Amino acid sequence: MEQLEKYSQALATKLGESVQIKEPIQLYEPLSYIVSLGGKRLRPILTLMSCDFFGSSYEKAMDAALAVELFHNFSLIHDDIMDEAPLRRGEITVHEKWDVNTAILSGDAMLILAYQFFENYEPSLFKELAKLFSKTALQVCEGQQYDVDFETRDDVSLSEYIKMIDYKTAVLVGASMKMGAIVAEASISCQENIYTFGRNLGIAFQLQDDYLDAFGNPKNFGKQLGGDIIANKKTILYLLAMEKGTAAQINELSGLYSIQPENPSDKIKNVMSIFESSGAAELTRNEIIKYTQKANNVLDEIAISSENRQVLIDFGDYLMNRTI
Amino acid sequence: MEQLEKYSQALATKLGESVQIKEPIQLYEPLSYIVSLGGKRLRPILTLMSCDFFGSSYEKAMDAALAVELFHNFSLIHDDIMDEAPLRRGEITVHEKWDVNTAILSGDAMLILAYQFFENYEPSLFKELAKLFSKTALQVCEGQQYDVDFETRDDVSLSEYIKMIDYKTAVLVGASMKMGAIVAEASISCQENIYTFGRNLGIAFQLQDDYLDAFGNPKNFGKQLGGDIIANKKTILYLLAMEKGTAAQINELSGLYSIQPENPSDKIKNVMSIFESSGAAELTRNEIIKYTQKANNVLDEIAISSENRQVLIDFGDYLMNRTI
Repeated sequence: MEQLEKYSQALATKLGESVQIKEPIQLYEPLSYIVSLGGKRLRPILTLMSCDFFGSSYEKAMDAALAVELFHNFSLIHDDIMDEAPLRRGEITVHEKWDVNTAILSGDAMLILAYQFFENYEPSLFKELAKLFSKTALQVCEGQQYDVDFETRDDVSLSEYIKMIDYKTAVLVGASMKMGAIVAEASISCQENIYTFGRNLGIAFQLQDDYLDAFGNPKNFGKQLGGDIIANKKTILYLLAMEKGTAAQINELSGLYSIQPENPSDKIKNVMSIFESSGAAELTRNEIIKYTQKANNVLDEIAISSENRQVLIDFGDYLMNRTI
Repeated sequence: MEQLEKYSQALATKLGESVQIKEPIQLYEPLSYIVSLGGKRLRPILTLMSCDFFGSSYEKAMDAALAVELFHNFSLIHDDIMDEAPLRRGEITVHEKWDVNTAILSGDAMLILAYQFFENYEPSLFKELAKLFSKTALQVCEGQQYDVDFETRDDVSLSEYIKMIDYKTAVLVGASMKMGAIVAEASISCQENIYTFGRNLGIAFQLQDDYLDAFGNPKNFGKQLGGDIIANKKTILYLLAMEKGTAAQINELSGLYSIQPENPSDKIKNVMSIFESSGAAELTRNEIIKYTQKANNVLDEIAISSENRQVLIDFGDYLMNRTI
C-alpha cells in the first residue's frame, strides 16, 4: 500500500534523527545499531495508520510510534541475551557484538528513552499514553516470563499458551493502535475497539508464525523451515498434538522432541506428519481464523470510513495468508 | 530524628503493600526479595522530608518516594549483574539467588513499576514527575557507563570522576528531593534549589564513601576497611594521588595497584601512606567540604522554616562527619 510506504519512510527518517550516538558512546552506540537493523516496523506503522484513520494527521502520532518502536527494540536486546541468540535480523546481536553488560545497560537506557518520546504531548495525553505504555510493557515482561517458565513445563494448556503470546506479542500490537487513536482523540469505545482489533490480530499473527515454521512454503519462508522443531520448541502445534494425539502419537512426538539429530530432515518430516495426523495442524489453522475473525468483528464497531475499514481487513488477510 | 523514623516506618509499610508477589512468581518474587533486604532508604525519605518541609503532607509524596526507591532497587539488581557481585546488603544478590536472566527481566519490570507509581498524580504533576524521573534515570545509566569505561582508562581527571558520581549517584538524590517539592507545589526556584542541595550533598556523600573506605574508623565501619584498595578501585583518593604525587609515589602506587596479595594488610598500609603523603587525602577532605558547603549555600535561597533549614544542615553535617 502506498500509505504504508509513506509511514515507513517518515518513521525511518525520524528514527535516524532521534537515536543519535552521543557520550558515553558505549551506551548509545548499541541503540543506534539495533535500530539500524531495520525490521518491518509493524507496530509503529500501526500507530501512525490508526491515528490517520481516526481523522488526525499521522505526524501527530510520530512520537508515540517512536516510543513503541524503541520499546520493541529494547525488548529484543534483553530477550536476545536471555535466549543467547547469536543473530537478530541476520546480523550479530548486541550482547555478542559488545557484551552482556553493555546489552543490559543500553537496553535499560532504550526503555527510558521510549518514555521520553511521550513528553512531546500535553499532560493529559502524556498521562494516557504513558499509562497504557507501562501497563503494556509490564505485560510484555510477564509474557516473556511465562515463555521462560513454559520451557521447563510439560503441562501447558492451549489457553495458557494463548495468554503467553497475547502478553509477549499481541498486547503491544493492540497498544500501538490504541495510541494512534488516543492521539487522534477518538472516542473511548473506538480506542477500546481498535485495541481489541490489534490484540486479536497480534495473536493470529503469532500463531501463524508457529504454523509457518512447519508448514510455510520453503521457497518464500525466509528462515529455515522447521527451526522450531529442530529446537524442540513447544509451539501451539506441539501443544495441540500432545493434547489431542493418540497415545502412540504422543509417545512418538515425545521421543522426537527429546533428540537433536545432526541431520534433522527425518525428524522434521516425522514431526510434521504427527502435527497433521493428530489434528493439531487443522486446529491451529482454526485458531488463526478464529482470532482473525475476532479482530474483524470489532471493526464494525469502529467509526472509520469503509475504505479504511477495508484496509484493516486486507491487512489482517495479508497477515493470515502470508506464506513468509 | 523523630521525623525520619516516622517517614521510614510509613515507607516500609507502603513498600510491603506495593511490592506483592503475584503471577508469574519468578518475575515478581525477586522484587519482593530485594525490597525486603531493606537499606537506609535515604532517597525516598528525602522525598517525604522535602514535601513536608515545603508545607505539604508527606503522605502526598509517598507514591513519588516509592517510585524513587523502586528505581534505586532496579539499578542495584542490574548493577550487581554487571559487577558480578555475590552479596547485596549482606545477602545473596538476585542474579545469584535466581539467575542472570531472571535478574534482567525482574529488573526491567521493576523500572516499569516505578513509573506506574506516578499514575496516582493528576496529569500535570504526573508529567512533571515522570519527566524528571526519566531524565534522572538516563543520567544514572550514563553514570554507570562512565564507571565501567573508567575501569579500563588510566587518564580519568577529577572533573570526569565527579561527573561520574554525580550522574551515577547524586542526581537521584537531587531528584528525590525535587519530587517532594514538586508534589508540595513549591515554586520553581525552590524546586531547583532543593535539587541543587540534594545533588551537591549526594556528591559529598559519595566522596565521603571513597574516603571512609580507607580512613574510616575500623570500629564503626561496617564493611572491610580498604576494600577499594584491595580491589584496585580507582576512587578519588587514587586519582588525586596519581595526579598530584611525586614520580616516586606514582610509580609505587601503580605497582601496588597492579597486585592482589593474599594478605593485603601491607598493601593497604602502603597505599594509605601514599594517599596521605601525596596530599590526596587532604584534597579529598577539601572536596567533601566544598560540596557540602555548596549544598548548604543554596539553603539560604529556599523558602522553608529556619527550623527545617537546620534539619537539612544537620543532615549534611551528619553525612560529612559520619565515620561509618
